[in-house]
Amino acid sequence: MGFVRNAWYALSWSHEIGADILLARKVLGKPVIAWRKSSGEVVALADMCPHRFAPLSKGEKVGDGVRCVYHGLEFDGTGKCTHNYHGVAPSSAQVQSFPIREEQKLVWIWMGDVELSEKVAIPEIPFLTEEGWRIQFGTTNAKAGYELYNDNLLDLTHATFLHGVIGGPEWKPKTRIRELDDGRIHCNYLVEEMGVLGDNEKRVQVEDNLYWTAPSTHVLSIEHTPRSATATPFYVISCHLLTPETERSTHYFWAGAVPAGVPIPDEVLHDTLRTAFEIEDKPMLEAIQANMGEADLWDLNPVLLPADSGAVRARRRLKALREEERQ
Amino acid sequence: MGFVRNAWYALSWSHEIGADILLARKVLGKPVIAWRKSSGEVVALADMCPHRFAPLSKGEKVGDGVRCVYHGLEFDGTGKCTHNYHGVAPSSAQVQSFPIREEQKLVWIWMGDVELSEKVAIPEIPFLTEEGWRIQFGTTNAKAGYELYNDNLLDLTHATFLHGVIGGPEWKPKTRIRELDDGRIHCNYLVEEMGVLGDNEKRVQVEDNLYWTAPSTHVLSIEHTPRSATATPFYVISCHLLTPETERSTHYFWAGAVPAGVPIPDEVLHDTLRTAFEIEDKPMLEAIQANMGEADLWDLNPVLLPADSGAVRARRRLKALREEERQ
Amino acid sequence: MGFVRNAWYALSWSHEIGADILLARKVLGKPVIAWRKSSGEVVALADMCPHRFAPLSKGEKVGDGVRCVYHGLEFDGTGKCTHNYHGVAPSSAQVQSFPIREEQKLVWIWMGDVELSEKVAIPEIPFLTEEGWRIQFGTTNAKAGYELYNDNLLDLTHATFLHGVIGGPEWKPKTRIRELDDGRIHCNYLVEEMGVLGDNEKRVQVEDNLYWTAPSTHVLSIEHTPRSATATPFYVISCHLLTPETERSTHYFWAGAVPAGVPIPDEVLHDTLRTAFEIEDKPMLEAIQANMGEADLWDLNPVLLPADSGAVRARRRLKALREEERQ
Repeated sequence: MGFVRNAWYALSWSHEIGADILLARKVLGKPVIAWRKSSGEVVALADMCPHRFAPLSKGEKVGDGVRCVYHGLEFDGTGKCTHNYHGVAPSSAQVQSFPIREEQKLVWIWMGDVELSEKVAIPEIPFLTEEGWRIQFGTTNAKAGYELYNDNLLDLTHATFLHGVIGGPEWKPKTRIRELDDGRIHCNYLVEEMGVLGDNEKRVQVEDNLYWTAPSTHVLSIEHTPRSATATPFYVISCHLLTPETERSTHYFWAGAVPAGVPIPDEVLHDTLRTAFEIEDKPMLEAIQANMGEADLWDLNPVLLPADSGAVRARRRLKALREEERQ
Repeated sequence: MGFVRNAWYALSWSHEIGADILLARKVLGKPVIAWRKSSGEVVALADMCPHRFAPLSKGEKVGDGVRCVYHGLEFDGTGKCTHNYHGVAPSSAQVQSFPIREEQKLVWIWMGDVELSEKVAIPEIPFLTEEGWRIQFGTTNAKAGYELYNDNLLDLTHATFLHGVIGGPEWKPKTRIRELDDGRIHCNYLVEEMGVLGDNEKRVQVEDNLYWTAPSTHVLSIEHTPRSATATPFYVISCHLLTPETERSTHYFWAGAVPAGVPIPDEVLHDTLRTAFEIEDKPMLEAIQANMGEADLWDLNPVLLPADSGAVRARRRLKALREEERQ
Repeated sequence: MGFVRNAWYALSWSHEIGADILLARKVLGKPVIAWRKSSGEVVALADMCPHRFAPLSKGEKVGDGVRCVYHGLEFDGTGKCTHNYHGVAPSSAQVQSFPIREEQKLVWIWMGDVELSEKVAIPEIPFLTEEGWRIQFGTTNAKAGYELYNDNLLDLTHATFLHGVIGGPEWKPKTRIRELDDGRIHCNYLVEEMGVLGDNEKRVQVEDNLYWTAPSTHVLSIEHTPRSATATPFYVISCHLLTPETERSTHYFWAGAVPAGVPIPDEVLHDTLRTAFEIEDKPMLEAIQANMGEADLWDLNPVLLPADSGAVRARRRLKALREEERQ
C-alpha cells in the first residue's frame, strides 16, 4: 500500500504543543518530535538522536532547541547539532527535520519531498478560525488504517444503525455524491422529515454536507430545519483529520462547533461528538481492521453499494497519488 | 500443518446459543457467527459483512436474520442479503454459510466441502442425551494446538503427576491401546488396587476407558470397584471436544457426568472436573506450545514411550486425513 | 547478528538458586532450567522434556534430579533419564546439559561447544569475594540487546544528563580509553573538581575506572578525593553482567559495594544503585531498542563521537569473536 507522502498532515492541535512540551508522535511510520520555539514557531524533527538513536523526546527543551538526555547532544529546530557537552559538536550529526505550518489551530507536518511542500495547499477548514463558533476538540488514536476512516466518513448511511444521536432509524437520506473540479468530493444527504434525536414529536428536515480533501481531511455540516411547531433550527459543523501513524493505525483529530449562542453546555457538546467518533465509530473500524488483517480492501472483493461511490472515488484518487509519487 | 476440514466440529454447547445470542467464535482460522432462529434452528455464517467486512456479530438479530450494525444490510440464515435499508439489497452480497447440526446438546459446524457434509457422521456421545445422568458442562479456550490436546487425552499416564484428584501417585496403570475397526482408538487403563483420591484406607480398582474419534472427540469413563470395606463404587464419564480456533489455539468443550443419584453436589462435580481440565491440563499444554513455538512435533524429534502409541496413531490418522483432503 | 556462544555467561546470582528452587531462564534464546544438588553443585539443562517438550521447570526436584510433572520422567543433573514411573527409562531420553561453574557468588553457564569450556576463563570480579566489602545485588531483565548495554557502560559521559546521583551537570570528564593486552577495554574518566551529588559546597575529584571483558562483563569503580574541607573520601565499586536472553533482550545482573565501614544504610545503597541501573539506564536502552527495531546499529549509520571509541572497539571485538565461531 504505502502512504501519500506529499501532503500536509495534521500533527496535532495547536493547543497540544504548549511552551514546555516535547510532543512525540509517529507519523507515516516515522517517530517525530515537535516543540514550540520562544518565537511561537513549531518545529519538528525525527525523534531519534543520530548518535545512539535515543528518542529526543525523552530529553528536554534547552532554549529553542532540544537536548538528548542520553549524552547531552543539543539540536536546534533545523536538526543541526549545536552543542556537545563533552566535546566538539559533530557536523555530521544532523537530524532530519520536517516542514511545519501552523494554520487554523492545527500544526501541519510535511513528510514528503521538501521541495514540493510549497506547492501543496493545506485544506481549508474555515469554521476553526471564524468568529461566532463554540468549538470542542478531540485527539485519539485508532488501530485501523486511515482509508477505513475515509470510507466511514464518505458514506454517512452508516449513521442509521451505528450512531445513536446523530443518526437513528429515520436516517434514510437521499444521497448525492459528486467530485468537484478542485478534486474534493462532496456528499450531500437529505432527509425531508424525521424526529430529532429520538424525539419523534419534534420533526425536522436534516441535511448533511461532507467535503473530503485528499488525502484525509473531512468537513461535515449537519443542519436541522424545523418541520413541526416544537422543533428548533440546529446547525453543527465538524472536521475530521486522519493522519496515518502506521499502515494500520491512525491519529484522529476532530473538532465540532455550534454557533456561539446555542444553549448546549460545552460538556454535552463534547460528549456527544466524542461518543459518535470515539465510542461508536472507532471500535467498529478497529474490528474491521482486525477482520481484514493485512489484506488490502480490494483483494477481499467487497460488495459495493451506491453509497460507496464517494469512498471508491477517494480510494482511486489516493491510489493515483501514490503511483504518481513513485514515478 | 493445516486442518482436517471435512469433519463436524463442536461450535458450542446448545445452551450457549440462547434466543438473543449472536455467538462469535473463530473456527479453523475463520471468524464465524451463529444464532438461533425462532424455529429453534441454529445457523452459522462467516462473521464478516461482504460489504465492508464489519463483524456481523457486532450487529443484532432481526427476525430470523442478522443486521450488520455498520450500514444496516440484513442477511438470513443462508447468508443471503435480504434487506438494504438504504436501497436495493445487492444480490452479490452473499455471506458464506456453514452447515450446522444440533445433536447431543452440542451445535456442530462443518467448515469443509459442503457436498461431503452428509457423508460424515457426527461422533456419538450417548451419555449426553441418555436418561439418568447428572451432567456438568464447560467451555474454555487454550493457546495450544488441538493435537497437543489429543496427545494429552490419549495418554492418561499423565494423571499420576499432573492431576491431584483423578490421578495421584498410585496411578500406575496397565495400559492397552488398540485401533477399532471403525477407526476409533480405544485406550484401556487398569489399576487393580489403589487409594481413592488420596485416602489410602479406601481401596478401589480403577479402570479408565477412553475412546477417540477423529479428529478430536474423546469420551472417557472412570470406574471405581471397591477393594476394601469402606470404599464405594463410583463411575464418572466425560467427553472432550477440541475445535481448532487457529493452528495453535483450541476451543475446548467438556462435559462430565455421574449417575443421577450420586450424592456429590453439582458445584463439587463441576469444580473437580474444571480443575483437572482447565487448571491442571491447560497451562501445561500452553507451556508446551510456547516451548515448541511454530515447530511441528515431529521436527523436534520427541522421544516416544509405549504409552504414546495411541497419540501417535491419532496423529498418523490426522495426517492421512489431511493428505486425502489435499488431493 | 547472533551471539558469542563460546563464553561463560552469568546465569544467576548464587543466592537465586536456593535448595528448593528450579530456576527457569532463557539464555541465548534457549530455555534453561538450573537447580542445586544436595552436594551444593548447580546443574543446568534445557528446560524441555525430550518426550513431550513440557518445561521441566514446572515439575519438581526429586533427590538431585528433576521430575517432569507431565508424565513423570526423571532426569539427573547430566540430563540422563533415570526413571520412568510408567515403564523403562528410555535411554534415548537425554536432555541437553550445559556446563556450569559457580564462582564469585555467581552461577556461570556455558552455551557453546562443550570441549572449549575449559579453555575460556571466567572474568575476574575480585570485590565480590574479597573481605571488607558491603555488597548489594540486583537482577533485572531489559527489552534491549546486550550490546546496547555494553555501549552504555563503555561511554560514561552519559551520566551527565541521564543519571541524577552518579553524574550530573558537572560531570564533564577527561576520558582515556585503551585496549589492554589481555583484550579487556579500560576506560578512565577524571573530573578534577566537582560538587558531590548535587551539593556544590562539597568539592571532590571524581575518578571512574571501567574494565570491560568480552563479551559482557563490566567492573566499574568510582572514587571521590576531597577537594574542600567538608568533603569526604568515597569509593564504590560495581559489576554489571549482561547475559543475552534473546537478540533483543538481556538479563542484567549487577552488584555494588562500598567498604564495610562506610555509614550508608543498605537500603540507601541498594536504592541508589537500582535507580541508576534500572530506573535511569534501562528505560533509555529499551526506548533505543524500540527505535532501532530489528536493525543493526551499523546499518543505521550512527554518528560517532570520541567517547564512543570503547564501545566501538568492543563491538568490533564481538563481531570478530562471532565470525571466529562460525568458521
